[in-house]
Amino acid sequence: MTRTAPLFTKVALIGVGLIGSSLAHAMRRGGLAAHIAGYAPSPETRARAAELGFCHSMHDNPADAARGADLVILCTPVGALESAAQAISSSLKPGAILSDVGSVKTAVIRDVGPVVPEGVHFIPGHPIAGTEHSGPDAGFAELFDGRWCILTPVAGTDETALATLVDFWRGCGSRVEVMDSKHHDLVLAITSHLPHLIAYNIVGTAADLEEVTQSEVIKFSAGGFRDFTRIAASDPVMWRDVFLNNREAVLEVLGRFSEDLSALQRAIRWGDGEMLFDLFTRTRAIRRSIVEAGQDTEAANFGRNAKPNRA
Amino acid sequence: MTRTAPLFTKVALIGVGLIGSSLAHAMRRGGLAAHIAGYAPSPETRARAAELGFCHSMHDNPADAARGADLVILCTPVGALESAAQAISSSLKPGAILSDVGSVKTAVIRDVGPVVPEGVHFIPGHPIAGTEHSGPDAGFAELFDGRWCILTPVAGTDETALATLVDFWRGCGSRVEVMDSKHHDLVLAITSHLPHLIAYNIVGTAADLEEVTQSEVIKFSAGGFRDFTRIAASDPVMWRDVFLNNREAVLEVLGRFSEDLSALQRAIRWGDGEMLFDLFTRTRAIRRSIVEAGQDTEAANFGRNAKPNRA
Repeated sequence: MTRTAPLFTKVALIGVGLIGSSLAHAMRRGGLAAHIAGYAPSPETRARAAELGFCHSMHDNPADAARGADLVILCTPVGALESAAQAISSSLKPGAILSDVGSVKTAVIRDVGPVVPEGVHFIPGHPIAGTEHSGPDAGFAELFDGRWCILTPVAGTDETALATLVDFWRGCGSRVEVMDSKHHDLVLAITSHLPHLIAYNIVGTAADLEEVTQSEVIKFSAGGFRDFTRIAASDPVMWRDVFLNNREAVLEVLGRFSEDLSALQRAIRWGDGEMLFDLFTRTRAIRRSIVEAGQDTEAANFGRNAKPNRA
Repeated sequence: MTRTAPLFTKVALIGVGLIGSSLAHAMRRGGLAAHIAGYAPSPETRARAAELGFCHSMHDNPADAARGADLVILCTPVGALESAAQAISSSLKPGAILSDVGSVKTAVIRDVGPVVPEGVHFIPGHPIAGTEHSGPDAGFAELFDGRWCILTPVAGTDETALATLVDFWRGCGSRVEVMDSKHHDLVLAITSHLPHLIAYNIVGTAADLEEVTQSEVIKFSAGGFRDFTRIAASDPVMWRDVFLNNREAVLEVLGRFSEDLSALQRAIRWGDGEMLFDLFTRTRAIRRSIVEAGQDTEAANFGRNAKPNRA
């Protein structure tokens, strides 16, 4: 989408890791902001972001970055959102939109909501996009292309501000869905949080086996294990915060998962091939639907085989 | 590797699905066989394989395909190996090598071993390579490049025959490791069978949630879930047979996994962020080792982001 005038005069990114830096690249590609101001808590990240140059200005404190911005997006781990919001609240201009990219939404509304000044439109958001890499070098403009961004406005949210934020995400390449924060947290618990939890768990289990060496686990990982290690290489702070802040929904889906796994365990113990075959057939259809919905590639092995790795 | 003379005059493939057809392509690329004979139980697969032409001859019964071959490789699901071996045993020539590509090895030795005629060298094998696609169209020459093939010879195996089979797999692009079948089954239980089991399980759990629609699971799958659906799209018959035939080792590692998952569940319930952070940091290092070992790509998201899918 090419625009004649930018959607915003100034956008501030509080946090310029994978998501923040990708947003900067995507905004530049889409011509969405005349000025992009950035902030990161660590001096190293600020210096590196300045070097990479995806923001027009980098600031040593978040309030300076946010001052006068039409849109401020908090791009920190969920556990740091409240203090980030506190740090900028006095410099937010009336009529500004304040959003975030956190993976949980009910806790964010609980923590950030009370800090937001009168006259600022707080609309929580969550782009369902990412990679296992983190930091300002990991960002790229295409990250949000074709992926979904979920917005979870609270009751009484200004419709114009919401429509503007929807335009913003579409301009970044996203599709946009609006839903209630509680439903978001449950949907993401099954589509993202539980997958990460069990990926982290199996990689831990494999590392701790006494009878199989770590080097064997690594050598023979192409049998399926390697796929889990990608997800289990995601940012530890971000994911710790997700589990601490979406406890209820994660425990709920984890309970279902464990119940189902016990049934599978029993089927294996008693040699119930029919039950195994039925499940394994059913799950194949869901993969097809995901590929048809444009949410994954049809290529075998995610296309990895095109360029085999040789050591 | 280019050869002046083929390693074998005739190789027979009993089964021409993903692995069988990939072996045919790899043998042709490496110049490993003067003649490749193929067999598949279903007339449709035989016809399709004949059309694709990766074998020099396709046969209506396995004994004809195997007759006079220097190397016969059983490429059927593990549950069909015994009857396949029975069907060809009378046509195996003395001095021939009989191998397979099954994902479990102790059960294969138990089932196939007794059927092998005197004078035939039975050496079980397992290439740690595959994709979520199956059938004769799914095969390609590069499947084994840089991956490991594990051979699990029984006591008293002829050293020359073993060396020849090692040469064969190297000629197909593989690296080769030799180990005891029981150890193989445990290593694969953690690096392949358990990952498949929990991938199948989580996809099943997601499909059965009442509060989250199937369409939501599909739309928002890029948060992690989609990766699991690839593995859970693997061939149902093949995987049913794996779990029925590697029961003990799978139940052993599954017990460990469930124990560890309970500890994680407790950490989430009690808000133990330190435990979560420690595990999530540890698992990141294993991903790095797998990439360094050439067993996966370094590219973010397995390189999928290079060409985003748009519906």
